[in-house]
This record gives sequence, structure tokens and C-alpha cells, in this order.
Amino acid sequence: MRSSAMRDLMAVTARPEVISLAGGLPDTSTFPPKSFAAQMTRIAQESAAEALQYGPTEGFEETKDCIVEVMGAEGMLVDPHDIIVTTGGQQAIDLVCKTLVDPGDVVICEAPTYPGAVPVFCSYQAEVIQVECDGDGMRVDELEKLLERLRGEGRRPKFIYTVPSFQNPAGVTMSLQRRQRLVELARLHELLVVEDNPYGLLRYGGEPLPPLYQLDGGDFVIYIGTFSKILSPGIRLGWAVAPPPVMEKIVLGKQAADLCTSTLTQYFVREYFAEGRWRQYVEDLVEIYRGRRDTMLAALREHFPAAASWTEPQGGLFIWATLPEYIDTGDLLAKALRADVAFVPGQAAYIDERGRNSMRLNFSGVSDAEIREGIRRIGAVIAEQVELYEALTGEQATPARRGEADGADVLPFRKAGEASG
Amino acid sequence: MRSSAMRDLMAVTARPEVISLAGGLPDTSTFPPKSFAAQMTRIAQESAAEALQYGPTEGFEETKDCIVEVMGAEGMLVDPHDIIVTTGGQQAIDLVCKTLVDPGDVVICEAPTYPGAVPVFCSYQAEVIQVECDGDGMRVDELEKLLERLRGEGRRPKFIYTVPSFQNPAGVTMSLQRRQRLVELARLHELLVVEDNPYGLLRYGGEPLPPLYQLDGGDFVIYIGTFSKILSPGIRLGWAVAPPPVMEKIVLGKQAADLCTSTLTQYFVREYFAEGRWRQYVEDLVEIYRGRRDTMLAALREHFPAAASWTEPQGGLFIWATLPEYIDTGDLLAKALRADVAFVPGQAAYIDERGRNSMRLNFSGVSDAEIREGIRRIGAVIAEQVELYEALTGEQATPARRGEADGADVLPFRKAGEASG
Repeated sequence: MRSSAMRDLMAVTARPEVISLAGGLPDTSTFPPKSFAAQMTRIAQESAAEALQYGPTEGFEETKDCIVEVMGAEGMLVDPHDIIVTTGGQQAIDLVCKTLVDPGDVVICEAPTYPGAVPVFCSYQAEVIQVECDGDGMRVDELEKLLERLRGEGRRPKFIYTVPSFQNPAGVTMSLQRRQRLVELARLHELLVVEDNPYGLLRYGGEPLPPLYQLDGGDFVIYIGTFSKILSPGIRLGWAVAPPPVMEKIVLGKQAADLCTSTLTQYFVREYFAEGRWRQYVEDLVEIYRGRRDTMLAALREHFPAAASWTEPQGGLFIWATLPEYIDTGDLLAKALRADVAFVPGQAAYIDERGRNSMRLNFSGVSDAEIREGIRRIGAVIAEQVELYEALTGEQATPARRGEADGADVLPFRKAGEASG
Repeated sequence: MRSSAMRDLMAVTARPEVISLAGGLPDTSTFPPKSFAAQMTRIAQESAAEALQYGPTEGFEETKDCIVEVMGAEGMLVDPHDIIVTTGGQQAIDLVCKTLVDPGDVVICEAPTYPGAVPVFCSYQAEVIQVECDGDGMRVDELEKLLERLRGEGRRPKFIYTVPSFQNPAGVTMSLQRRQRLVELARLHELLVVEDNPYGLLRYGGEPLPPLYQLDGGDFVIYIGTFSKILSPGIRLGWAVAPPPVMEKIVLGKQAADLCTSTLTQYFVREYFAEGRWRQYVEDLVEIYRGRRDTMLAALREHFPAAASWTEPQGGLFIWATLPEYIDTGDLLAKALRADVAFVPGQAAYIDERGRNSMRLNFSGVSDAEIREGIRRIGAVIAEQVELYEALTGEQATPARRGEADGADVLPFRKAGEASG
């Protein structure tokens, strides 16, 4: 499923009768309208003319102060001069690619990877190589072998792109050991790592792990963050953190791309952070999303067949489910849409043909009732496929290991028994 | 002066003691804070959750309705399906290039051209060819010769980029006859024209001319517009209009670039247009800017040397001044900054080394008093240079034809007597 199909999918799911588990939407209905109105009134009274004017290409110092605070909440110390405010985290990915990637360059990312990153890498004509994930995130041992192989071929990847915490789409989190090893490898090979961390503060269980940026100190790690998941995606505010020589080029790219990020939405963030309750709001979101994750996991156990498996994310917005190999989730989606339910077919997260029997399920943007009903509908469509298969072949599908039994050693989003690529 | 220098310039001019005639800033202080507050309160009360959420990649229908209204005010009829809402007009330029330009492709633009377009063309590795302007805009006869030459070489330009009305930076407006001929040529050669029209509604004198989009009907003209100059640049809202096959690719590019345009700022525009007084606000701006243009023209006559010439724009934000050839405006800027005044050196508007003795002066973003004082300071710095030259050479600089005497046949932003390139 390429990005044009993704777009069509998003258009279809805008139909009110469709329960969409396809989006990556936070629940913005929890944001207090009174607080919104108060912030905007303050801006109108105190700085309307400035809020409507152009701003600096790098973003306002006050926005950077908020970013320093957000990164500090995850244990990162960052110099505001190393920050650029971008039009959402997506633009940060685009600008990093624009700055670093020449046609034919190797870019390494996870398998599966963020579906929105795939068209960006492709648009800069990168050669994308994906490294398998398991329950502990990217297989850094596999990465190491890949780097050796590339070195043997005289090829140097431009960067390694990773979402280490509560990955989009797999929901898995990179272990501390792998984080440490990844940062070591970056230093050893003098390679850049692009750490995309939209969900780090949305943890529903387990202990926080240090971001790669923190472990590395920012020498080889370019960091990408966003206000989309802790405040609002509609304000289109994200950021990148990079060392000065890279930042200089990113800033030039930003200027060519859209001159500067919205002053109005940056002022909104300034006022919102001045209220001093942003962390409480994130806590509120965590409570809500934890409940929805649990609802989805329970619904999966109830409605998905024994032959399916799925991840059990400790945070973020997504669960990744793997179905029997004979089910193509692209075809399944067409049937699901007729049943008024949507998901993202797994293939969107791969450059090649892999992922055909997997799907990304979002639990943050829908109510508990919708989650239960949505999973029930998908389960029914899958059941039809399973029955059809069994009737045609006369055999029963091998039960995949159930998600709840998955430890770090198995591949929770592949069928059990399948070899790691 | 390349874009990094441009950025440094913008940073320097943020110093409060500097009178900056370098920006392209509209005067947002005229926007009524009460209206701002009322719109935001309405959004907070009626649609806070939606305003903070992601929106469609193409933009909201309601935003497109506003765009249809704005284009209608200049006589254009447009199908909302052909519109994409972008993160400012700058992103529209970027997306058009991303969609159409492959490395080595020829892109034709005016000489001088919008300084912000130059780094975009370069970032997509276009071969940029500039066609001279005179007081009637792009020399379409020169363009015709160029197209013939390129055809002889078997080369096909990807598009012709033009700001036909109140051009940035030259302030000139393409005549009706040339507009008609340009559209004919596009049809004849099956070439795309990218019409960038940020200032069309900001006319201070003379009769409105039909946009190229209107003359062509949208077959060969891709149109770029923006709310930056008629409402606010801080909301980062612009748009592109293109036929479906091109639009489809632009939408994919947009999705990769930043997913979608800010919902919050689109809602702001929706509420603002619902008030029904946007045209009155543009009229108010026209009154203010007309006065500032006249103030700047009077100050130029008073403080610039006889050897200088300048354009007399009928609209827009800029005047283009040309100094004796021995003055390099890049060097002059360093001196001007020491006198706490700034402008954009002409070279920023050229791909090659031309424009060294010219400058762009903005009159929209500064008060009448600042315009007078700013031009006085620049005039003083120029006078020093002129005196130095005369002392060193013992000769007097040839007086250039004065701006006020310029007709359509002369080149108002080149020294009189200099041949057209």
C-alpha cells in the first residue's frame, strides 16, 4: 500500500459511520476549551500584531524554552541553539532527509517503520534498508551485521532512522541494552542516528528508558520531537535537534520549504506552557490511553482468531497485529471497509512486499466502545477468511503464539515459527 | 548574496534600533485584536477539539471556499477540487518544484526574481534561466527567443515562474499584452506557467489586470496564492491551484512534507471570512500602503543621488532601486547596517552575479517616519560612496534616468543606457 492508497484510506475513514483504527490521532477532545479560549484571548490582547506576523526561521526562543522543558521531562539536556521549530515532526523528518540524503544514499530504518517516513525517504531517492524489530525494538545485532556488510562494500549509510519508544507502527520499545549498543555503534562508525520520539512521554507501564539523545549527548543523534501527541497535531508544531553544522543546513532547508513555522501556533504553545499544567495534561492522556490500550488488548483476545498475534505496547498509540500468512491485509481492508471499520495494512510500513499479513491498530483516537466494536468487526471479517481458507484447504491454520505470551525473545508481530529476516 | 546571508540579514534586522526596509512584512498591527479574540473564542467554544486535530492533506473545504472568494475578487473562477491549502505560499512554490523538477531541468523565471524562490529552484537542482524585466514586467519577446533557442537544443523547460503583479522584488507589473502573449506561448509550446500572485489585491493605482490563470483558464497555469499579505503571514496559509494530474502529485508531496496544514489557523481564516469584512480590511491596507509607497518615493527623490533610479510600483510591497554601477549593494549593506538601516541587496534576486548595484526596499512593514529616516540613512551611505568614487576617479557618475521618468520602454531598475541582457 503506497502513500496514495494511504491517503484514499484516510478519506474513506472520514465517513462518520466508519470506525477508524487507521489514524494516528490523539484525543484532542480532552483539551479544555476554556483554557484554549483564555490563551487565545491573552494573545489577542497582548500580542495580536506579533502573533500574525512572520517569525524567525528557527522558531521563537519562547517555543524553544518549552521544547527544552519537554525534553527535560524525559531526562534530556539540550542547548536551545541546537533546536529548530518545524511544521510538525513530519517536516523535521523531511528536512533531515533534504539536508542529508543524496539520490542513491543508504538510509537504514526499522522493519516495520513509520509509514509516513517511507514516502519521504523515497522522495529523496534513498536506498532504504530495513532492519527487523522484535519485542525489544530494532535488532541491533542485525544492524551491526548490516553495517559490516555495507562497510565491506564501501558504502556508508547516511543515517539510521528509529522510533525507539512505543514504535509506530509496531508499538515495541527498544531495550536499554540495545539503545546503548546503538549509540556505541553510531560513535564507532561515525554514523548519524535520527531518533524520532513522538510518544516518549505517553508511557502506560514499565520504567522510562533514556532516549538515544541522552545516551549519546547529541554528537551522533539527531533528535525529532513534536507537540502533536502531548498537546495538539492541529497546531503543526514539531522540532529537530542537531549539531551546528547540520542545523545550519536544516535551517536553510526550512527557509526554502515554508520560511518559518506559524507564529500564531507558537504563541499558543507559549501561553499554554505558561499555565504550568502541561505535564498534568499529559498524565490525563496517559490515563485515558492506558485504558483504551487495555480495552483493545481485551477485544483482540476476544475477537481475533487463535492464529493471530499482536504486540502489547507499554505506551504510544498503536498495536501491531499479525494474522495467518494466507491473509493479505490489503484485501482484508476492502472487506473491513464494507463492514465500516478501518486499519492500516502492514505493507505501508515496509519498502518491499513484507508485512502483507499484518496491520496497525490505533487505540488513542477512538472511544472504548468504538474500540470494542471496531475490533469485533475486524475479527468477524478475519474469521470469514479463516473459515474460507480451512474449507478450501481442509487444514487448520497454525495458531500463532498469542500476544500476551510474547517475551522479548520472540517476534511479536510475526507469526511464531517464522524466521527472522 | 545567498540565502544564508539573507538569513543573517534578517537576524541582524531584528535589532530594535535597526530600521529594516529588508523584510517583506505586511503591517499586522492594523488587524483588530477584538476581532482576533472573538474568532478564537468562537473556535474554542464551538470546535476546540477539531481545531486541535489533524486535518485533510488538501486542506478543509471551508478554507477552500475562502480561497475561491479571494480568487473571485480578482476575477478568477476556480474549482475547489483544484485547490490545495499549503503552509504559506512558500510551501506552494516548494511543492510545485518537488512535483515537477528533476535535476538538470530548465526553470525559467524573471530577472530579478523573488529571492525566496532562488534557493528552492536550486535545492531541486534546476538549471535556472532568467529573462529580463522592464517596466512592463517580464520581456515576453525575450522569453520567446529563449524558448526557440531551447527548442533548437531539444530542451523543454519544466515551467516559467512569474510574479506578474507588483513583482517581488522589482515592483513592476506585466502588461495585459504580455500576459496574453505569455499565455499563448504556454499553450503553443505546451508549457506550464507558475503564476505567483501574493499581492494582486494590493493595488494603489491604475486598472486591475486579469491574472494569467484567468486568461488561460487553468490549463497551463499553476496558480499560487497566500493569505500572508491580505490577512497574516503568521498563520502560514497559502495555496496552489493545479489541474488534477499535477495536483495528485502535489498532494502526495504535501503529505510527505508536513502531513497537512494547521487546522487551527485554517479555522481562524474560516471564522475571519465568516465575519464578512475581509475586503474592507484589504481596502484599509491599500490605503495605508499607498501612503507609505508615496512617502518612500518622495524620500528617494530627496535623499538618493541623481545617478540612482527606481521603480514606481502600482501595488505590492517593494520598490527596486538601481545605483551607479560602481556601487556594490552587498558592501553597501554592511555600511548601512552600521547606520542602523537595512535593505535586500539586488544580487539575492539573481542566480548569477547580476544585480550587484541594485536593492529591494520594502515600504509596507514600516511607518512613514521610519521610511523617511531609513531612506535618509541609506541615501547618506550612498552619498559617501559617490563622493569617494568621484574623488578617486575625478569624474562624475552618469546620472541614471530618474524613476519618475520611467516609461514602459525603459528599464527602470537598471542604469539608463545599459543594454538589456
